Amino acid sequence: MVSTHPTGVQLTGSQYLPQRLNLNENVSPNQELLPLTAKVNNHDCLEIGGCDITTLVQQFGSPLYILDEETLRLACQQYREAFQQYYQGASQVLYASKAWNCSAVCAIVASEGLGIDVVSGGELYTALNAGVSPDKIYLHGNNKSRSELDLAITSGVTIVVDNWYELKTLVEMVHTTSQPIRIMLRLTPGIECHTHEYIRTGHLDSKFGFDPNDLNEVFGFVSQQSTLNCVGLHAHIGSQIFERQPHRDLASVMVQWLRDATKYGVNVTELNVGGGLGIRYTESDDPPSIEEWVKAICEVIQAACAAENLPLPKLLSEPGRSLIATACVTAYTIGSSKVVPEIRTYVAVDGGMSDNPRPITYQSVYRAVVANRMSAPITETVTIAGKHCESGDILIKNAQLPKNQPGDILVVMGTGAYNYSMASNYNRLARPAAVVVANGEANLILRRETYQDLIRQDCLPERLKK
Amino acid sequence: MVSTHPTGVQLTGSQYLPQRLNLNENVSPNQELLPLTAKVNNHDCLEIGGCDITTLVQQFGSPLYILDEETLRLACQQYREAFQQYYQGASQVLYASKAWNCSAVCAIVASEGLGIDVVSGGELYTALNAGVSPDKIYLHGNNKSRSELDLAITSGVTIVVDNWYELKTLVEMVHTTSQPIRIMLRLTPGIECHTHEYIRTGHLDSKFGFDPNDLNEVFGFVSQQSTLNCVGLHAHIGSQIFERQPHRDLASVMVQWLRDATKYGVNVTELNVGGGLGIRYTESDDPPSIEEWVKAICEVIQAACAAENLPLPKLLSEPGRSLIATACVTAYTIGSSKVVPEIRTYVAVDGGMSDNPRPITYQSVYRAVVANRMSAPITETVTIAGKHCESGDILIKNAQLPKNQPGDILVVMGTGAYNYSMASNYNRLARPAAVVVANGEANLILRRETYQDLIRQDCLPERLKK
Repeated sequence: MVSTHPTGVQLTGSQYLPQRLNLNENVSPNQELLPLTAKVNNHDCLEIGGCDITTLVQQFGSPLYILDEETLRLACQQYREAFQQYYQGASQVLYASKAWNCSAVCAIVASEGLGIDVVSGGELYTALNAGVSPDKIYLHGNNKSRSELDLAITSGVTIVVDNWYELKTLVEMVHTTSQPIRIMLRLTPGIECHTHEYIRTGHLDSKFGFDPNDLNEVFGFVSQQSTLNCVGLHAHIGSQIFERQPHRDLASVMVQWLRDATKYGVNVTELNVGGGLGIRYTESDDPPSIEEWVKAICEVIQAACAAENLPLPKLLSEPGRSLIATACVTAYTIGSSKVVPEIRTYVAVDGGMSDNPRPITYQSVYRAVVANRMSAPITETVTIAGKHCESGDILIKNAQLPKNQPGDILVVMGTGAYNYSMASNYNRLARPAAVVVANGEANLILRRETYQDLIRQDCLPERLKK
Repeated sequence: MVSTHPTGVQLTGSQYLPQRLNLNENVSPNQELLPLTAKVNNHDCLEIGGCDITTLVQQFGSPLYILDEETLRLACQQYREAFQQYYQGASQVLYASKAWNCSAVCAIVASEGLGIDVVSGGELYTALNAGVSPDKIYLHGNNKSRSELDLAITSGVTIVVDNWYELKTLVEMVHTTSQPIRIMLRLTPGIECHTHEYIRTGHLDSKFGFDPNDLNEVFGFVSQQSTLNCVGLHAHIGSQIFERQPHRDLASVMVQWLRDATKYGVNVTELNVGGGLGIRYTESDDPPSIEEWVKAICEVIQAACAAENLPLPKLLSEPGRSLIATACVTAYTIGSSKVVPEIRTYVAVDGGMSDNPRPITYQSVYRAVVANRMSAPITETVTIAGKHCESGDILIKNAQLPKNQPGDILVVMGTGAYNYSMASNYNRLARPAAVVVANGEANLILRRETYQDLIRQDCLPERLKK
């Protein structure tokens, strides 16, 4: 059986997971949800990057985020190569690091030639700390602080200006630098798409970006500012989107903006079309491949530029989730369980809403496998609960699993995006460790927090001491 | 005008906030949502605990959690005194510290004679570190780890056993201690109440607690274990509840369990009725007072024990939100804004879903005031957005505010519970500082995180370095 991984790679199924996992095709997890290097070894255990998951848990503890370097690198390459193939002009892929911003992930994507989009001083600091070149860093945000803008200016990254207040603040701040500040302008395209309300950013009722109706005024203002070097325009329509048409519409609209900018004497040479390509969290998700997504955008930009007789801009894009979500899994250890007769069976793991807040926040659906009994038949329908003191702390409703018991290792798939990055210390749980795996080697990329870490920020004023 | 604070204290309105704040009674914030010591000073600024909020922000930065010690202490006293007044037996109020577990809050409530309920090793570690006496600490959790149980046993706290797996694990672990382990049993009462699905814990379809149908078997097992000292029973029906009847029903059911335990030779002397009393987040919320809540429970327990001819148990309760939510506000600085014509105006602050995840997680509604122009007429309806790169990062929809501008200090009320405790570093934003205020003095209780803190757990494996 040959199938296509979310990243677009042709897989031979038998090479990765035994066919029997697909016994119940409608509900059971399948190999397309796992990282590319996923295999089942002779101990009937799941291996990723050549590392046995159960061994990793013994070594690094539980819960554990496990990032497959090969899947991440391949997705980076696919984005880069697809733009090279389908776009006649220059292009630059930026990793939308809010999906998972940490030093190691920044270093990996940068080594694949990607730039990085950051949305705060903290993300910028991390990218710089990981050695990412400032000329490939772009700072976003609807309400950047002066200190964030300061850090961006002094480190020489491009600032994606979101609104008038920020634009005017930058003009005021100009004395802090001798060179013009390199900026792009974010605009709200007014394009609707089908995704969760919380992560839909392109519609007109959005906190992000300039109103396109103000474009002439904005370009007029910017063209007067010798201290600002406006190199491009940015827009983003949302996240986890499966349709291609909204992205085509966006590309088309952006070329019209490009034309308008030129009219106003603003020499815009870069277009950033944002990100938003969805991934497959469950079997029923059917996103386009990276290649299909890139091709659709490139075709529209090129056709529209030809029609307007405009030179091709440098084309930037900002994938986040589609680069990293499938590359990572979270391993938990199964603990207590509770049978509620005629209703459901709860199986509890040693993490929950603090390490993966997506189910409670967005009602996100995940799939899981029992990593130490990969070939066992799927016979149970259970609800995977976390260990938080909260009823809403449910990771997966109606998970399809083999018979399992305390000590088994449950692997939840597709946790690379918006898991560690959104993790909290709710209930004063320590945030888990994360490792990157490749060629049988595992390296720690995020240390597990200790009890001592949990009270690190605590102060006990003298008068409250006993 | 005399009104009743959520904590039950009689307030003279004029003493706290000018009457004019109540111009639009249906929508505008009023003094009952603020801490008890809230006043407006001669600079037209909000003061809490004798401290000017704008001065606090200058001194400690923004955003800032500001905890009013007097409001917290008074709520502790009201709980304690209400049980003394309405209950003929012994009682012990435990602070459900998952609402906000940090060293200073643990120390304050402990100094008021309260015990502490903790739900993880991290919360337990914090309470011990704050000097709380182990005999007043109770450990909860549906899936406690062995290391958490170990810490509980060695430090001598009471373990509220949630399920069979935990009960049997404790029996196995008994060799680690010479004394019997002091436990309570958590049961699922099967009582429905009206609150958010995520925080409703008492209904039968819950991950928490033993099934009451298994009671005979559970008591039978426990009575055989000389290594376990089962002192009591626990149940909890949920959080942010305004009705008193479910708590009355619970109290009644628990006395029946007490009677059954006695039959099985388990000498149960403590009943823990949990918590769940709601607070007033908006003017339309109408929770009972602390006194009313306590009175209702005590009456039922005493009547039922008399009817069953049982001695009165020591009565424990676990308020969290109702002790601390109203005692704290969060001060933000207003930054950019965006007018979407004919739709809404966004006003952005320098925090958001990372420091208060309740709106995005539970659709919670908050009220706010502009702390540096307290007497300005309320003329604007705006949406308060955070600074996160996410459309769902909205703190308050349709906030009623005076005209405001960048640099103004927005104070969101009722943020003492489930704000700092659920805070994340999403977008690598640093978690804010928190101060406790009393008698004109402000003391840091949680240090603001720095960029260096944000990368503290990051490791960059050698082979990923440039």
